[in-house]
Amino acid sequence: MRLTPSPKLPSKSILDRSVGQKPGSLSVSADALTPRLFLVSFDQDYYEALEFTDYDLLMEAFRSAPQARHWIDVRGYGNVPLLERIMADFQIHPLQMEDVINDYQRPKVEEGPNGLFIVSRMIAFLPDHTLDDDQLSIFTGDNYVLTFQSDYEDCLDSLRERIRVGKGSIRKKPVMYLAYAMLDVTLDYYFPAMAQLGEYAEELEDCLFEQPSKQLLSQILDLKRVVVKIRRIVWPERDKINEILRLDESVVPQDLKIYFKDLYDHAIQLIDLIDNYRETTSSLTDLYLSNVSNRMNEVMKVLTIISTVFIPLSFIVGLYGMNFSRENPDGSLNPLNMPELYQPYGYVTLLGFMALVVAGMVYYFYRKGWLSKD
Amino acid sequence: MRLTPSPKLPSKSILDRSVGQKPGSLSVSADALTPRLFLVSFDQDYYEALEFTDYDLLMEAFRSAPQARHWIDVRGYGNVPLLERIMADFQIHPLQMEDVINDYQRPKVEEGPNGLFIVSRMIAFLPDHTLDDDQLSIFTGDNYVLTFQSDYEDCLDSLRERIRVGKGSIRKKPVMYLAYAMLDVTLDYYFPAMAQLGEYAEELEDCLFEQPSKQLLSQILDLKRVVVKIRRIVWPERDKINEILRLDESVVPQDLKIYFKDLYDHAIQLIDLIDNYRETTSSLTDLYLSNVSNRMNEVMKVLTIISTVFIPLSFIVGLYGMNFSRENPDGSLNPLNMPELYQPYGYVTLLGFMALVVAGMVYYFYRKGWLSKD
Amino acid sequence: MRLTPSPKLPSKSILDRSVGQKPGSLSVSADALTPRLFLVSFDQDYYEALEFTDYDLLMEAFRSAPQARHWIDVRGYGNVPLLERIMADFQIHPLQMEDVINDYQRPKVEEGPNGLFIVSRMIAFLPDHTLDDDQLSIFTGDNYVLTFQSDYEDCLDSLRERIRVGKGSIRKKPVMYLAYAMLDVTLDYYFPAMAQLGEYAEELEDCLFEQPSKQLLSQILDLKRVVVKIRRIVWPERDKINEILRLDESVVPQDLKIYFKDLYDHAIQLIDLIDNYRETTSSLTDLYLSNVSNRMNEVMKVLTIISTVFIPLSFIVGLYGMNFSRENPDGSLNPLNMPELYQPYGYVTLLGFMALVVAGMVYYFYRKGWLSKD
Amino acid sequence: MRLTPSPKLPSKSILDRSVGQKPGSLSVSADALTPRLFLVSFDQDYYEALEFTDYDLLMEAFRSAPQARHWIDVRGYGNVPLLERIMADFQIHPLQMEDVINDYQRPKVEEGPNGLFIVSRMIAFLPDHTLDDDQLSIFTGDNYVLTFQSDYEDCLDSLRERIRVGKGSIRKKPVMYLAYAMLDVTLDYYFPAMAQLGEYAEELEDCLFEQPSKQLLSQILDLKRVVVKIRRIVWPERDKINEILRLDESVVPQDLKIYFKDLYDHAIQLIDLIDNYRETTSSLTDLYLSNVSNRMNEVMKVLTIISTVFIPLSFIVGLYGMNFSRENPDGSLNPLNMPELYQPYGYVTLLGFMALVVAGMVYYFYRKGWLSKD
Amino acid sequence: MRLTPSPKLPSKSILDRSVGQKPGSLSVSADALTPRLFLVSFDQDYYEALEFTDYDLLMEAFRSAPQARHWIDVRGYGNVPLLERIMADFQIHPLQMEDVINDYQRPKVEEGPNGLFIVSRMIAFLPDHTLDDDQLSIFTGDNYVLTFQSDYEDCLDSLRERIRVGKGSIRKKPVMYLAYAMLDVTLDYYFPAMAQLGEYAEELEDCLFEQPSKQLLSQILDLKRVVVKIRRIVWPERDKINEILRLDESVVPQDLKIYFKDLYDHAIQLIDLIDNYRETTSSLTDLYLSNVSNRMNEVMKVLTIISTVFIPLSFIVGLYGMNFSRENPDGSLNPLNMPELYQPYGYVTLLGFMALVVAGMVYYFYRKGWLSKD
Repeated sequence: MRLTPSPKLPSKSILDRSVGQKPGSLSVSADALTPRLFLVSFDQDYYEALEFTDYDLLMEAFRSAPQARHWIDVRGYGNVPLLERIMADFQIHPLQMEDVINDYQRPKVEEGPNGLFIVSRMIAFLPDHTLDDDQLSIFTGDNYVLTFQSDYEDCLDSLRERIRVGKGSIRKKPVMYLAYAMLDVTLDYYFPAMAQLGEYAEELEDCLFEQPSKQLLSQILDLKRVVVKIRRIVWPERDKINEILRLDESVVPQDLKIYFKDLYDHAIQLIDLIDNYRETTSSLTDLYLSNVSNRMNEVMKVLTIISTVFIPLSFIVGLYGMNFSRENPDGSLNPLNMPELYQPYGYVTLLGFMALVVAGMVYYFYRKGWLSKD
Repeated sequence: MRLTPSPKLPSKSILDRSVGQKPGSLSVSADALTPRLFLVSFDQDYYEALEFTDYDLLMEAFRSAPQARHWIDVRGYGNVPLLERIMADFQIHPLQMEDVINDYQRPKVEEGPNGLFIVSRMIAFLPDHTLDDDQLSIFTGDNYVLTFQSDYEDCLDSLRERIRVGKGSIRKKPVMYLAYAMLDVTLDYYFPAMAQLGEYAEELEDCLFEQPSKQLLSQILDLKRVVVKIRRIVWPERDKINEILRLDESVVPQDLKIYFKDLYDHAIQLIDLIDNYRETTSSLTDLYLSNVSNRMNEVMKVLTIISTVFIPLSFIVGLYGMNFSRENPDGSLNPLNMPELYQPYGYVTLLGFMALVVAGMVYYFYRKGWLSKD
Repeated sequence: MRLTPSPKLPSKSILDRSVGQKPGSLSVSADALTPRLFLVSFDQDYYEALEFTDYDLLMEAFRSAPQARHWIDVRGYGNVPLLERIMADFQIHPLQMEDVINDYQRPKVEEGPNGLFIVSRMIAFLPDHTLDDDQLSIFTGDNYVLTFQSDYEDCLDSLRERIRVGKGSIRKKPVMYLAYAMLDVTLDYYFPAMAQLGEYAEELEDCLFEQPSKQLLSQILDLKRVVVKIRRIVWPERDKINEILRLDESVVPQDLKIYFKDLYDHAIQLIDLIDNYRETTSSLTDLYLSNVSNRMNEVMKVLTIISTVFIPLSFIVGLYGMNFSRENPDGSLNPLNMPELYQPYGYVTLLGFMALVVAGMVYYFYRKGWLSKD
Repeated sequence: MRLTPSPKLPSKSILDRSVGQKPGSLSVSADALTPRLFLVSFDQDYYEALEFTDYDLLMEAFRSAPQARHWIDVRGYGNVPLLERIMADFQIHPLQMEDVINDYQRPKVEEGPNGLFIVSRMIAFLPDHTLDDDQLSIFTGDNYVLTFQSDYEDCLDSLRERIRVGKGSIRKKPVMYLAYAMLDVTLDYYFPAMAQLGEYAEELEDCLFEQPSKQLLSQILDLKRVVVKIRRIVWPERDKINEILRLDESVVPQDLKIYFKDLYDHAIQLIDLIDNYRETTSSLTDLYLSNVSNRMNEVMKVLTIISTVFIPLSFIVGLYGMNFSRENPDGSLNPLNMPELYQPYGYVTLLGFMALVVAGMVYYFYRKGWLSKD
Repeated sequence: MRLTPSPKLPSKSILDRSVGQKPGSLSVSADALTPRLFLVSFDQDYYEALEFTDYDLLMEAFRSAPQARHWIDVRGYGNVPLLERIMADFQIHPLQMEDVINDYQRPKVEEGPNGLFIVSRMIAFLPDHTLDDDQLSIFTGDNYVLTFQSDYEDCLDSLRERIRVGKGSIRKKPVMYLAYAMLDVTLDYYFPAMAQLGEYAEELEDCLFEQPSKQLLSQILDLKRVVVKIRRIVWPERDKINEILRLDESVVPQDLKIYFKDLYDHAIQLIDLIDNYRETTSSLTDLYLSNVSNRMNEVMKVLTIISTVFIPLSFIVGLYGMNFSRENPDGSLNPLNMPELYQPYGYVTLLGFMALVVAGMVYYFYRKGWLSKD
């Protein structure tokens, strides 16, 4: 009956901020993964994707091809000196690197000396009906995109494949298009999550009509909270994209704006969807409460009917269980004291009368509509 | 008892987006209709309307009359090469064509190289009390309006007739007036849909007072969701028209603005209507819950009254069913042990007393107002 | 038990819009009244008020006094050619004339070639507790105000009298002051309507405490809807006046602005009043539901107390109705099998004991506070 | 049980507006007090405070000291010719004088030819738990402040004393500082009113836990309405002060702005307080409803337990009240028909068994936690 | 059962404002602590921290090192002449000093002649589940930060340690960075308070499922109010930081803005967290009410089942307790009057029949799902 606390309380990390710590200090949690370093270098006619174990080799490869476009892909935060070297090499402000590591930031965009710093959230609706969300931190530069994430797994494999194959504009357009493509893929993953959430909502609704259990309300309220949580992620996501749209042309070229406009439309559609689910979960709560009360009413009705049928009958049989004396004090026969008891057909008549009473009451209840299922 | 999921969950299409697909790619669903091509060419004194099976012939006819105004009317999306040719011929951006095909876009307007790209939604309130909404995508150019829709049937036939007959301004005004007329007709169809929805709401209310059933709440909540859904369509519709109103005079001529202003007023009226229905459906929910509880109370009252009448009677008859011995242990008569049982008129007196008790209680309940219907 | 649908559903007219009809077409409903034409001409020292049956004569009188100020007052729409002649003479746009005739417009103001086009709503709270609202359409010009309304009766008679008497500024100030005076009188009529609505709310509250009936909730919810409807009329009314305040000095002279500012304050006061009533009706709903549940609880309590008093008594009398044999199988007296039955004072003692049980329970319930009225 | 209607319905005055009356006309209600006229004249080194019965004498005193600062203090409106003379002398617009007399205006500020016209509201939380609010109308000029109020009593005596004593800045600063001081004192009186309201809320809460009565909900809802009413007074109060802050330096000198900024902070604090009380009253409603239902549940539980204990016992004693014959038709002893009745220890055993049943049930209910108080 | 009033009613201080007191007057409450004076002086290479008992010595030390940066730290308000000297020395406006002393101000920032006046609130979630909040008032100058607080204890010790150790930028950056660091530390302390609040919410939820008590609802509603109170502190906190961000570069140097931007992000995260808790507490209320009703339903079900099982049985045993005479009046045997009583196996058969009835009913209830736990 105890609920899993995860969807209700924010992940501990956000509440574990070392109080009084100096701003911009990099305190990586003990269970952070060792960073893996990937470099995807590409041009219209050129493509190379490698994993490096040595950061120096990666930078060498990166610097040796200044004419190409690069995606430097860091997965895992568990190496502070490495992060500090990256900060120095790519002119990242300590506060921004802190935002990368404390990965519970809201989606946002900031302008930096080399380009943009974009925070996105990748979500997944887990089989245990909770929401998993991870942070994707993106730094853009003139010829590179630098991404950070806490896990080795992510949702960008389809994008890597698109770069490899080289179809579409991805290898022709400037590097900001790659950043756009990352946001696009990230946002695309919200839709199947919404679909799963929708299926779960349908499932709960089925339960609601078939076998409403005590936990159902908890589950519905948990679902509501998941919906509210997604909403709180998607709204700043929308604001973020809107902010990118309003950036200067020197940062986001004019011909890319239409892509971000499209992204913006997707975010709006997501918000519409989420508001739909909010309505749905509210309806589910109403239906649940009404259903529980309906079921209770059904139980009450059974009691009512059985009691109401038997209580008069019990009175009648009690009546004829009375011991009024057939004999007067003087021993003579008293014809007024319960003469029914001495009729030859008294018992049978009474049984018949009681059957009539039952039939009359059942008919009355039937006409009142109390015997029908609802 | 299971509800049709359609009004609650978004149509699958919006959730079936191929994740990670490159933006602007045209993936038409398998059950898309083969496009039918129509061309309506007209001028103040000239009118021609033809269906073409060959796109080349259509373009030839279109290009051969550059001084006329044209409505190119494409119904069905099931031919990607054709769509790509149209994109090329009319300079449509791939992302916009994607919006046309994935036809679950919110109403919006975008400026393009040739004119406007307008997305409208045509709605109908179906007999099964769900909402059907289809997309009408409109591209305007100097001398043409190009429309796309997924079905062969639409709500624009009255407009086609108006062009054929040539009455009013439709054949005199610039081609943007034709786009306006399309939006106007589309929006006009919302009003009968609202009227049907209102009749359905009245129907539900009648049910509510006559024979409230378990499903009624589901139906009311479904109606609520339909109203909310329309609201979410009409609001961006209003924003869209407002955006058109604020467009430059070179795009929407000043003397057409009054028409779009009128359209804007209609959208506002629709929003007022919808908010009315929101109140109505909220009231229905309140009334339903109050009604269910009232009916339950009526059942409870019957039990109360019947029980309360019979429980004291049962006590009385139980009293005289006791076996207190009239004889003392020494065999003498005990005048104190239940002497009533030995009165000649004891039984009759008791029956009369019980009748009095019943009458007293019924009178008490009557004065309390518990015997009245409510 | 069925409610009158009027306050909930919008008047049919708004939903009866001919779908697909060309914009600006004048389709007058069949039951429109034949127009009556009035002309009030006045100057600081001059006053004339006439009803004309012939529009030409009216125009002649209007044109023959260009230095005077005129109020052309058209009541009833049932003559399309006449309306078209007025449109031509006063340069009224077809869409505006359509707004005049389809008289379910929200309050609004539009600038036209000659002056303003103002739509106001006159409301009345009818004795059947529904809201009646009619449209007053006002066109202003250099030296005239032209008004349209659907009925012969209106709320402007006090204004006509003020013009006739000539007290105050009405005959000295420019014609825009006359338009202001119309809006002022119209808005003034909202206050008695609110007062009647308030009395009705008090009446419902009295019912609520004296004799809550099943229909009361419907009535409260209907009242709520009326309040919401007025709110939806007054808000755009306020916006309209605000828009007039922000109009150029050439349209509304600076020294008239203080009057419109005053009007604006009245509109704000109305909104405050309406929000008061919203609170009141919400409270009424809460009180109703709590009251119904309280009454039910009272019924339940009576049952509880009566049952709880009699159930133990019934057990006791049942106990002494048992047939345990006083004789052992060997015919000897069994002193343990229900010796109470054979005590000389057994019955009397038992009656006393039961009276004690009753007194004890009544005392317990009294101390619990269950016997008090609430 | 009927509530006093005052806090719910707006005071009649606002609804008694003479419909159709010309704007700016001074119609004073019949029970308006005869005006009393006060003049406080002061300078840094000079102070005089007098009551005048003759307006001419007052004006003479006012005009004879043009270098001093004056507070002309009019209490009571019951003399229209006097008011008209004041209007003429101080260049007050008729609409503003109408606002003074119809003293149910929202707080506001208007710029006039001589200075500001400020409307404030003085509130008091009366012992009968309703809200009393009176209007203080302030006109400022170069060297005077002119105030109007309907009653002889007000909340400005502490301010008068401060002027007399001459401590602080009040006699050194320009006359606008005096206006500020009035607003400050007026707003200061909101805080004790809030404190009394808070005590009343606590009182209601105590009632709620000790002896919830039927009227309590009415009282809580009335309190809620009082809170909402104060809220509707304080919000425009805040807006008013904000507007004063944004006035030109020529009207409100720069070095006084910090005082109005402080006033603004007080208004914000009041709004915070009021929102606190809104939460509190909402909680009270929830607690009341939950409490009523809890008390009902307690009553039900007593019934449940008593019934559930006695119903099986009643069955048992009924069982041994049956008359199955111990003799077979052939007169032989039937050992199977209720042999228990003939056991020597039958009755005692049965009593013991019933005690066991009771104990078992009580133990069961105890373990279920149904015997504890909540 | 009475709640501690503290979290609901504002601390008395805010309501104890001396009404009519002149603005800017310093009225310190009687229980204010005697001020303790601290001076932390530092430079990149220099650090000194001293407590002074004499204000003159402190000012001497402060003035003797004009090139250094200073933090003058005043704890306790109980010395008005001292406060007045500080006001004079640091050019603090009387109204601002009043805000310092009446320490229930909302977070705000004001520009003064020397720098900024910032009001912050330090919060703690106390073990008795109420919220403690204290005010930290900060004045910045060219080379100093002057802070006031009412208690000797505060949350800034970690900051003092950071200055002492001299790591990070704190001793290198301008003095405005120190003010930033104070705000940062203050805001950092909100996160553990939120964590404790979250744990308490979980605790309440556990109670809710295990042993819901009457007070639980009060506790949940109190928690809700605490959450609302924090919300009302954090929102102006966010606005305050936003205002600082928009200050001129001369006041807040451009390179410090990124730190305030980071602070702004933290405030937004806090608001997200708080909104999460609002949802959680709302869910708890719903769950509580549903739970209470569920428990009640369980009790009702037990009654229903026991009653429904025993009522028919009681009827049956009552039936065979009737005294219909086996003898006709003429003394002959009447075979129709209750012959069952004279069957050799009558009693046993009846017991069996009643066992069947019980089994049938239990089976029926089982199949209905009424015997399962929920």
